[in-house]
Amino acid sequence: MATKSRLTYSFGASRAEGNAGMREILGGKGAGLHEMTRIGIPVPPGFTIPTAVCNYFYAHRRRYPSGLENAVNLALRKVENNLGRRFGDAANPLLVSVRSGARESMPGMMDTVLNLGLNDDTVAGLAARTNNPRFAYDSYRRFVQMYADVVLGLKSTDKAAADPLTQILDAKKAQRGVRLDNELTAVDLRDLVRAYKREIKARLGKEFPADPYEQLWGAIGAVFGSWHNDRAIAYRELYHIPHHWGTAVNVQAMVFGNLGDHCATGVTFTRDPSSGEKSFYGEFLLNAQGEDVVAGIRTPRTIGELEQTMRKAFGELRRVCRLLEKHFREMQDIEFTIENHKLWLLQTRTGKRTGFAALRIAVDMVGERIINKQEALLRVEPDQLNQLLRPIFDRQGKQRAEHAGDLLGRGLPAGPGAASGRIVFHAEDAVAWNRRGERVVLCRIETSPDDIRGMDAAQGILTARGGMTSHAALVARQMGKVCIAGCEALQIDYAVGKLNVGASELREGDWISIDGSSGEVFRGEIQTRPSEILQVLLTHSLDKRQSKIYRQFAQLMKWADQTRKLGVRTNADQPDQAAIAKAFGSEGIGLCRTEHMFFQGDRIQAVREMILADDEAGRRRALAKLLPMQRQDFKAILDIMGRLPVTIRTLDPPLHEFLPKTEAEILELAQVMGVAVATLRHKVNVLQEFNPMLGHRGCRLGISYPEITEMQAQAIFEAACELRREGKHPFPEVMIPLVGSRQELREQRLIVDRVAQRTMKAYGVKVHYAVGTMIELPRACMVADEIAEEAEFFSFGTNDLTQTCLGLSRDDAGKFLPSYVLQGLLPDDPFVSIDRDGVGALMRIAVAKGRQRRKGLEMGICGEHGGEPRSIEFCHQLGLDYVSCSPYRVAIAKLAAAQAALRK
Amino acid sequence: MATKSRLTYSFGASRAEGNAGMREILGGKGAGLHEMTRIGIPVPPGFTIPTAVCNYFYAHRRRYPSGLENAVNLALRKVENNLGRRFGDAANPLLVSVRSGARESMPGMMDTVLNLGLNDDTVAGLAARTNNPRFAYDSYRRFVQMYADVVLGLKSTDKAAADPLTQILDAKKAQRGVRLDNELTAVDLRDLVRAYKREIKARLGKEFPADPYEQLWGAIGAVFGSWHNDRAIAYRELYHIPHHWGTAVNVQAMVFGNLGDHCATGVTFTRDPSSGEKSFYGEFLLNAQGEDVVAGIRTPRTIGELEQTMRKAFGELRRVCRLLEKHFREMQDIEFTIENHKLWLLQTRTGKRTGFAALRIAVDMVGERIINKQEALLRVEPDQLNQLLRPIFDRQGKQRAEHAGDLLGRGLPAGPGAASGRIVFHAEDAVAWNRRGERVVLCRIETSPDDIRGMDAAQGILTARGGMTSHAALVARQMGKVCIAGCEALQIDYAVGKLNVGASELREGDWISIDGSSGEVFRGEIQTRPSEILQVLLTHSLDKRQSKIYRQFAQLMKWADQTRKLGVRTNADQPDQAAIAKAFGSEGIGLCRTEHMFFQGDRIQAVREMILADDEAGRRRALAKLLPMQRQDFKAILDIMGRLPVTIRTLDPPLHEFLPKTEAEILELAQVMGVAVATLRHKVNVLQEFNPMLGHRGCRLGISYPEITEMQAQAIFEAACELRREGKHPFPEVMIPLVGSRQELREQRLIVDRVAQRTMKAYGVKVHYAVGTMIELPRACMVADEIAEEAEFFSFGTNDLTQTCLGLSRDDAGKFLPSYVLQGLLPDDPFVSIDRDGVGALMRIAVAKGRQRRKGLEMGICGEHGGEPRSIEFCHQLGLDYVSCSPYRVAIAKLAAAQAALRK
Repeated sequence: MATKSRLTYSFGASRAEGNAGMREILGGKGAGLHEMTRIGIPVPPGFTIPTAVCNYFYAHRRRYPSGLENAVNLALRKVENNLGRRFGDAANPLLVSVRSGARESMPGMMDTVLNLGLNDDTVAGLAARTNNPRFAYDSYRRFVQMYADVVLGLKSTDKAAADPLTQILDAKKAQRGVRLDNELTAVDLRDLVRAYKREIKARLGKEFPADPYEQLWGAIGAVFGSWHNDRAIAYRELYHIPHHWGTAVNVQAMVFGNLGDHCATGVTFTRDPSSGEKSFYGEFLLNAQGEDVVAGIRTPRTIGELEQTMRKAFGELRRVCRLLEKHFREMQDIEFTIENHKLWLLQTRTGKRTGFAALRIAVDMVGERIINKQEALLRVEPDQLNQLLRPIFDRQGKQRAEHAGDLLGRGLPAGPGAASGRIVFHAEDAVAWNRRGERVVLCRIETSPDDIRGMDAAQGILTARGGMTSHAALVARQMGKVCIAGCEALQIDYAVGKLNVGASELREGDWISIDGSSGEVFRGEIQTRPSEILQVLLTHSLDKRQSKIYRQFAQLMKWADQTRKLGVRTNADQPDQAAIAKAFGSEGIGLCRTEHMFFQGDRIQAVREMILADDEAGRRRALAKLLPMQRQDFKAILDIMGRLPVTIRTLDPPLHEFLPKTEAEILELAQVMGVAVATLRHKVNVLQEFNPMLGHRGCRLGISYPEITEMQAQAIFEAACELRREGKHPFPEVMIPLVGSRQELREQRLIVDRVAQRTMKAYGVKVHYAVGTMIELPRACMVADEIAEEAEFFSFGTNDLTQTCLGLSRDDAGKFLPSYVLQGLLPDDPFVSIDRDGVGALMRIAVAKGRQRRKGLEMGICGEHGGEPRSIEFCHQLGLDYVSCSPYRVAIAKLAAAQAALRK
Repeated sequence: MATKSRLTYSFGASRAEGNAGMREILGGKGAGLHEMTRIGIPVPPGFTIPTAVCNYFYAHRRRYPSGLENAVNLALRKVENNLGRRFGDAANPLLVSVRSGARESMPGMMDTVLNLGLNDDTVAGLAARTNNPRFAYDSYRRFVQMYADVVLGLKSTDKAAADPLTQILDAKKAQRGVRLDNELTAVDLRDLVRAYKREIKARLGKEFPADPYEQLWGAIGAVFGSWHNDRAIAYRELYHIPHHWGTAVNVQAMVFGNLGDHCATGVTFTRDPSSGEKSFYGEFLLNAQGEDVVAGIRTPRTIGELEQTMRKAFGELRRVCRLLEKHFREMQDIEFTIENHKLWLLQTRTGKRTGFAALRIAVDMVGERIINKQEALLRVEPDQLNQLLRPIFDRQGKQRAEHAGDLLGRGLPAGPGAASGRIVFHAEDAVAWNRRGERVVLCRIETSPDDIRGMDAAQGILTARGGMTSHAALVARQMGKVCIAGCEALQIDYAVGKLNVGASELREGDWISIDGSSGEVFRGEIQTRPSEILQVLLTHSLDKRQSKIYRQFAQLMKWADQTRKLGVRTNADQPDQAAIAKAFGSEGIGLCRTEHMFFQGDRIQAVREMILADDEAGRRRALAKLLPMQRQDFKAILDIMGRLPVTIRTLDPPLHEFLPKTEAEILELAQVMGVAVATLRHKVNVLQEFNPMLGHRGCRLGISYPEITEMQAQAIFEAACELRREGKHPFPEVMIPLVGSRQELREQRLIVDRVAQRTMKAYGVKVHYAVGTMIELPRACMVADEIAEEAEFFSFGTNDLTQTCLGLSRDDAGKFLPSYVLQGLLPDDPFVSIDRDGVGALMRIAVAKGRQRRKGLEMGICGEHGGEPRSIEFCHQLGLDYVSCSPYRVAIAKLAAAQAALRK
């Protein structure tokens, strides 16, 4: 670390060495504290150790840069002078909090220590100064417990049990016959601290540190260390936060919400983070510290009630909130403490919100002239739009079992949407059950950052304790998960693996349903119906004008359409999918997989006849049966899409996919088809492949059996010609898969062109059409210039291109790919987001070579990456013409494309 | 075709419009005729229609350029004037031959018509002019038969039967009680012509053309048409002759070797094409036409005998042969005809030869100062060296069956080497049997160009008729096949599927052995022993000085070593392979596959224990058993290779390859290992993969189980340290497979480096070593710059790179790849010769990126392409440092590398 770099940044008394623009250096929390101080908002004084120190710490075997100790001491002196208290002073002690703060908020992921500076001497001074021994010992008790957990690493060995100090606390409460912490006396609390220290000594073999400076450096080290704890790493993986950013450390004077009944602590949002409504929204606890709110140990009161209790502080809080939203031009998530009627701000940051809220806030703020349309487009995470499309419960629908749908209880509607799943009680179980295909609802007394993977794996989260700003609620909203928090009627017994709601008892594995929009918990599995937006768009059961959320959605989509450069098509194999896509404003079909039609109804019979045929004549007979069915499919899809392009891919999967695998299935099919078992078994054996992914599939089938391509082309052009005769303007694009050389494409396009000419002549009409190819092999990228001579369009098949480029079978990679991503061997799961350095580099070559050889070559992507925002951004950068994604992701893709255009 | 292009090139009477440098225009035969005419050698006059006309013909639906007819007529006039005869003149007719002639010789592949211009009128004139009615009608009979076959397409419908006209001829001979054609009288022959014409009319429904001009254009069209017949296409595929070259047509005045006993026709080579010996070598038939020699219908006499029959013509032939070899500075293959003691040359071309002959001629000609060393290196096809290493029969060895090894008969030693195989009688059977893994010997009365694929599929070829210059002999020598021609004791009955040699009868499927160096045919399968060169190099059973062929071989290798830029290493997994490679002058080991060692003896037991272990500790226990065995292997190999680099690849194949597949095998192994069947079956199921090629293998294993890499590294460095302690200088290069990102390589090299440091410290020695990677994934090529930061060397694994680049599983491609190559969809089998446009383009990117990031990065190739001459040329062009190939291909690779350097 360069010696000139600053090692601390102080703030306090309306002066700050940093500002809001210094997130990279100070972290989000630090930058917010400095900025608030600067604009005159009451913030307890303190200082920030910048992120560069964190990186130094990891680059130098957990040592600090020389000079840090000195800089920290100097910064601490400023705080002391500012407040007139001294750190470690027995008479008038300064207590501090030590908190992490990365560039992006990672709620609850890293460590925090409060009330630091207390020991047996200073606690007495605190008691004397505040004239409140109970408060002083309560703070002391909290500090020792938190420090033991965070810095000393004291954990329970039994996963189901509470940690050792909580057990001691619970025992004390039981002994004293009380339910809540604040019912314990000062003496109880002093005894507890002693008992805690004994337990720590017994378990760790050393004394709890009494020296405030030793405490301080322990806490700083713990905060830096927490940057690389498992849950923080997992969080960063999930949200694509680079590991090299590092965290800052904020050391700040304590203010106390637990000094008595004129004290409170709470969290507010400048708008409702669930609905986005512009209302002053928040929760608080009287006589408590902030951790109590976030951890969900006591269910807090809504912010409105604060007005009755502390009118002046409430007014001040409201003023400050308005000021902060205006200053930052964004919805803020604010932590505050009221110490004897005096308001202190401890944090402000951009508030996490549901998709509903994100949409509404963005559109509203444009209406309020706070932001412009471009900013609004950037304010909604594309994936959040998914939430708007999520089904809601259809209580009228048929239920699965008796009593299914019985209302069990109510909690806080913390994450909108409807979810059914089987009950699990532990995050690890959620992950394991999900992996084997089960839908689960994670039911917890409260959640902690350790549960993050389990929350991701669950359909929904249900907690017994905690408010709208509890960990469960915050994380669920960000993940777009259905969540009900603080369902107080819920009693969970982890040990037995059961939960009780009123008179009902449910066990692990039982079905439960939760409505995260209403807060209702139901027994059993409940059918769902489309979301409000889908009711407008698809079922027309709601009028556009009636639905506010639809109008907001339509507004955002309009702005996105005006902004984006990329076209958005859809992958649809069936007319109903095409209709959905059209309703979402898809600009064509980018991939229609003809083989999906092969599996429908009795078609599979004709397909199998074709495969079992001994010669071309036999294949042609079977194909003739398929022809009218395919024609009908294509006609319906082409009709729905009007003049828009419909890209139809010729047969792609290896033929063995259409035959049975097991001996039993072979026996059965042989009987059904009336062929000899031996014949069928022989064919299955002959067609078997070692590596089907790299086998006889794609255009290789059409080259071995040109009559297949011929039949499919005929079905396409007969369908198109029929429509043309009806005065319509269908636009089929015939796409040849798995092409690796110009000659392959040429062979296939000759067939398509011949059939097209013949069919158009027979019908006496002209149909506008194109022939092109998938680009899904590395070789195709390397010879894209040659292929472009035969292709009117390229469509990147990034699923297969990823498999071949990385030599990675998607079906097999599950065994090691997750740990690969975790270990940082690959930046992302390449099947989720395009591997830019590998697959992306091949695509870049193909784009350049293709365009160089054929001006105006149309290029798109039809792999699943076509619906993933970061991949869409890459496609925009590549200069593709369009992305194609699943029908329900069309809106997401449009927004992502608009954002890509704005970011360019 | 540009109108200015010449449409014919005339030659005759010491003047020619073309020369030897015009092969591309005139074809090889044409260029030879023009050049011979130019230098005063007696050549019947004629003209050449250039190859461009052939390409015009195919580009314009088999039409000719305007003006061709006129040009042909003019050229014909010149020939008429030159000889004082007229085409179609009943009194003094000019007869011509019409022959194909491509840039490269394609012996027998395309069509020829002789004696053209005969009809019922001109035959009488010919009879009168030559005063030899028998000759005239013999010529007429030959012409009609040949024209019917070549131009009119008259074929037998029964594959086993002779063609219809031959049946008529055979019937006539039987009726007249004679054995040979030349025992028939003029009247017999006239009757035959009439019978032929009747048969043609009956079968084809039209008269045989009497107009000589109609005959001529029919023949020209047939020759052009034959460029695209199946056997010509197959030949070009086999020898990589581009289809777009086209053929020329040579129209030339006939001279006659069948005018009587002062006439002869024959073929000579300026040196022995089998051994390379500098001796005047050839064969002739008295009173015959050239086709009789080539077709092998009569077994010809050796050229020496000509001296007794026609001393003057013999002397002239000898003089002309010397002149031609000197003129062309190459061994020549010459066709001649003697018409009434007058010698005419009909063709001269570079002679095909065996590998033995190629080597000897090249080395001898340098000694004779005809060519220089560079030319000598270019005169031997690298793959021909294979013949020198081919085993010879070990008659002392143990035979398989009673009577095996009994001498059945003798024929001409037409293709050296020893071959055993099962008898097949038809080319298609040879192909089919070979495909299912059988070794076969193709036994034919005579071979024809239709048999070429069958000859390629057979171990050896045995014919009953034909000489050293028969079709079978020529093609076998070129292919490097073992061949015995003209084994007159052999009687083959195609219909029954049996052959008789003396008293012995053998049936299809029986074993037979042929020695193509001695001409001996043996019953049964015979064991073999190493070739002479291998006896010198490997068994030391022969002294270097005793072996002439070894001295020639060593000479050529010395020149190759002086010339080549590419290093040549070998792929060897075991000490004996390393020793062979060393003997051949390998400059290191480019690929030592450690897993091959895993299968030896009882090691597989420890490997399976490792796989079945539940945890790392269990794996480590099993690995500890493997450690001493691997150390021992590595020590032996490193010891043999001295200071040369030994590239050792860490474990590559997926673990399921070491486990059983079928239920029966699982049961058996469970018993042997003493584990529960269910446990084993479960493990087998868990490890099963959909696409093993793209699965959990390569460095992915070492990353999942670092202890495997650790054990292997430990074995390598313990072996190296032990040798170093013994005063030796081992040089291990540790190679990490299937790397796709820099981070993967880094993880693995950290393990290797750590183990290396630890081991060297423990042994108290320093060992020179390197760590590098395979480049075998497209992604690795795209990020080769990043990978180069961790890699001291790259080794292209072109087997896997081909599979991933083309999306083509080598195990599965067999079903469609051959037809792909045939249809021209791919220029070559990409697993045989590097696909330059796809795989090669990726390699080019990797080379550039690798070198750009790390100066002096060592680069080689260890895929099977490393031993294939055209791929080696590409590696030279890429600027790789070395190729690595199988031990027996080291010499081939060295020669190919030298040629690449000379061609650059």
